[in-house]
Amino acid sequence: MDYTTLTHENQDGILIVRLDRPDNLNAFTVEMAEELEATFRNVNDDDSVRAVIVTGNGRAFCAGMDLVGIDGNVFGLDESKNPTLADMADLDDPELARVRDTGGRVSLAIHACRKPVIAAINGAAVGIGATMTLPMDARLVSTKARVGFVFGRLGIVPEAASSWFLPRVVGLPKALDLVYRADILDGQAALDAGLAQSIHEPDDLLPAAIDLANAWTKGRSPVAVAFARQMLYRNSAQDHPVEAHRVDSLAMFYTSKGDGADGVRAFLEKRPADFQGKASQMPDFYREWLGE
Amino acid sequence: MDYTTLTHENQDGILIVRLDRPDNLNAFTVEMAEELEATFRNVNDDDSVRAVIVTGNGRAFCAGMDLVGIDGNVFGLDESKNPTLADMADLDDPELARVRDTGGRVSLAIHACRKPVIAAINGAAVGIGATMTLPMDARLVSTKARVGFVFGRLGIVPEAASSWFLPRVVGLPKALDLVYRADILDGQAALDAGLAQSIHEPDDLLPAAIDLANAWTKGRSPVAVAFARQMLYRNSAQDHPVEAHRVDSLAMFYTSKGDGADGVRAFLEKRPADFQGKASQMPDFYREWLGE
Amino acid sequence: MDYTTLTHENQDGILIVRLDRPDNLNAFTVEMAEELEATFRNVNDDDSVRAVIVTGNGRAFCAGMDLVGIDGNVFGLDESKNPTLADMADLDDPELARVRDTGGRVSLAIHACRKPVIAAINGAAVGIGATMTLPMDARLVSTKARVGFVFGRLGIVPEAASSWFLPRVVGLPKALDLVYRADILDGQAALDAGLAQSIHEPDDLLPAAIDLANAWTKGRSPVAVAFARQMLYRNSAQDHPVEAHRVDSLAMFYTSKGDGADGVRAFLEKRPADFQGKASQMPDFYREWLGE
Repeated sequence: MDYTTLTHENQDGILIVRLDRPDNLNAFTVEMAEELEATFRNVNDDDSVRAVIVTGNGRAFCAGMDLVGIDGNVFGLDESKNPTLADMADLDDPELARVRDTGGRVSLAIHACRKPVIAAINGAAVGIGATMTLPMDARLVSTKARVGFVFGRLGIVPEAASSWFLPRVVGLPKALDLVYRADILDGQAALDAGLAQSIHEPDDLLPAAIDLANAWTKGRSPVAVAFARQMLYRNSAQDHPVEAHRVDSLAMFYTSKGDGADGVRAFLEKRPADFQGKASQMPDFYREWLGE
Repeated sequence: MDYTTLTHENQDGILIVRLDRPDNLNAFTVEMAEELEATFRNVNDDDSVRAVIVTGNGRAFCAGMDLVGIDGNVFGLDESKNPTLADMADLDDPELARVRDTGGRVSLAIHACRKPVIAAINGAAVGIGATMTLPMDARLVSTKARVGFVFGRLGIVPEAASSWFLPRVVGLPKALDLVYRADILDGQAALDAGLAQSIHEPDDLLPAAIDLANAWTKGRSPVAVAFARQMLYRNSAQDHPVEAHRVDSLAMFYTSKGDGADGVRAFLEKRPADFQGKASQMPDFYREWLGE
Repeated sequence: MDYTTLTHENQDGILIVRLDRPDNLNAFTVEMAEELEATFRNVNDDDSVRAVIVTGNGRAFCAGMDLVGIDGNVFGLDESKNPTLADMADLDDPELARVRDTGGRVSLAIHACRKPVIAAINGAAVGIGATMTLPMDARLVSTKARVGFVFGRLGIVPEAASSWFLPRVVGLPKALDLVYRADILDGQAALDAGLAQSIHEPDDLLPAAIDLANAWTKGRSPVAVAFARQMLYRNSAQDHPVEAHRVDSLAMFYTSKGDGADGVRAFLEKRPADFQGKASQMPDFYREWLGE
């Protein structure tokens, strides 16, 4: 894939993805959505990547959907259709291609990622620029960050599956407040709201994100990391803990036969473990579980 | 409907509902339950209302179920029945009319409301007086508020679907602690527990609630607000974010054809939007989604 | 049952369970799992117990799975099998006995317990020593506590259904951070992370846990307490509050005919209630609901 809206840089196992339309404040386009989806799909099979950081080139993170040139038919929607919820059962139906929210496609790709993902919010993160960070595992903000779920001011709704993710990040009452107010928060306010995990001077933002990515993944089994990520997102959303028990019994079984065998030996021998597992080769049960 | 337990006042688009049995500390009766249910149902079709505030007349918010005159058969239950969970499948079965928790009927009506709802807790909010505020989108307390999930002291259980709402408001560990302790919290303690969003001097309580209602809804598309409210409550409770994606794709599709068309134009032209959408006329998909 | 890894002491209705392998820092064994499961099953039928406290004998709470003597086949797994998620449908299948996570069996038993459960973490609580406390209703730590979800360092995954419980205790972003970092937190850090509800000097830990257990259960209806516990854990995980409404209508119905009858009379007469209900004899609907 030739990327035109993103750049990729692998720094010692950490893939830094930069939204790269700086003259347009990295405004989100259909092309950018496709490139982000491809990035998060590909990263699952790329064993040279332990973790992903998403940040923006220039002064913005992502200033929202690119609205330039749009008039009337706001998002290029096919107005001849009146799709129903029943129509959405098969999301791969090509008839729905222009109805499916592009931000949601990106969120689902991030949700399914086998590597931890960190947002390094360097500037404006508005609309889809804000919601695309919610399926990431942490949001670090610089003192220049501006974060806004501004949809309500435009007469539209929060997207990118943010109604699923936002209450998990900040709790339901704060999620309601942020969405109803539709204000733009500065970095400190984003931290206070629980949206961000930490705040940094602009020059310290990316180094802090890299430090976090290393603290999370360096020297770890990529198979165990992939399992842990999916278990926390998926099992916690089940009706009953017995569903977690089914999954974690098997995840423990297969990791114990795999990287866990040396991991435990190394622990007992007080030496670093030599993990050989690859996230590109998860046990069959992983795909069965995810319905992949 | 002739209301005898509530008063209604529409202040510039904000419906102020006052629990109005001040000589009984606004104690909750079956009649009050029916009038609250009717209020929240009717408000969905009343386009003159943008938001709802619930408060109490006199010195209490609602001191709990009215127990005066009750003896033995505590809540007027039909003791000849031994209903099972299977019996509860059809909630409209008239046989169940006296088994269904009246507080729960009110909570479900608030949950289904298309307008933001704010509790302005001016005094005692005990038992159902506390649990009825949980499906509301914010709880503002005065310094005279007293909030208590006191069911445990009476040998009964929290109701009004509060076991679904309370952990979403304060988190599961705090919910367990509040319910087990069954204590009455003052306003500051309610704030510290995460139950309340803000605390105010008694005279400032209603103005603060009105300010919040305006910050949430003034100048906004009522269609977009209704969608956002239901999306946050419903999508966040789904097992997988793909369910949110199905819904928000369609909500974005229909709002973009509707109020979003002028909303985006207005944003680009730096003028206020002219939203014409009505919450009384949601897209067909909305009712399909809610199973209404 | 002859217990060899636990001791039990009933102090005025509070069952203090001590993990009792102090020479091994109370390391977790299959035997300890079975004894914990039996303890939490038995406590449901023992009306002399109002609440349960779990703590450790000696200087540790539980230093994790006992790995001594294990080599190669890390957890004694039957490596000839390649179980699938479909195989896990019937958890009682004897073929799965060595695949099912033993920690998960303990967590499910705690989850199903009719009495409040409190962890009094007196020292190291690592691996299963940490995850086994998550289905408990509060975690009190001493200044000597050390709590760590260290699985990632060993190439294995968090177990004991902790992917369901941990996000409910600390929120999803903090859960991801704790599991990815796999660090060991001291007592204050556990408090700051929201894992622990309070911190105490070592000598004050057990008295504080006993005070909390009394505040939660003394003078209360054990039937109402059992209902409240299960309602908060189970109803909050449902997709829609109507499911809570079905359950709490019936729980209110049966408690109102039971201990609530005198509870309300006592309240009106300003005297202590005389609750006669027994948690060993829950209404039939309780078992129907839990699928027991």
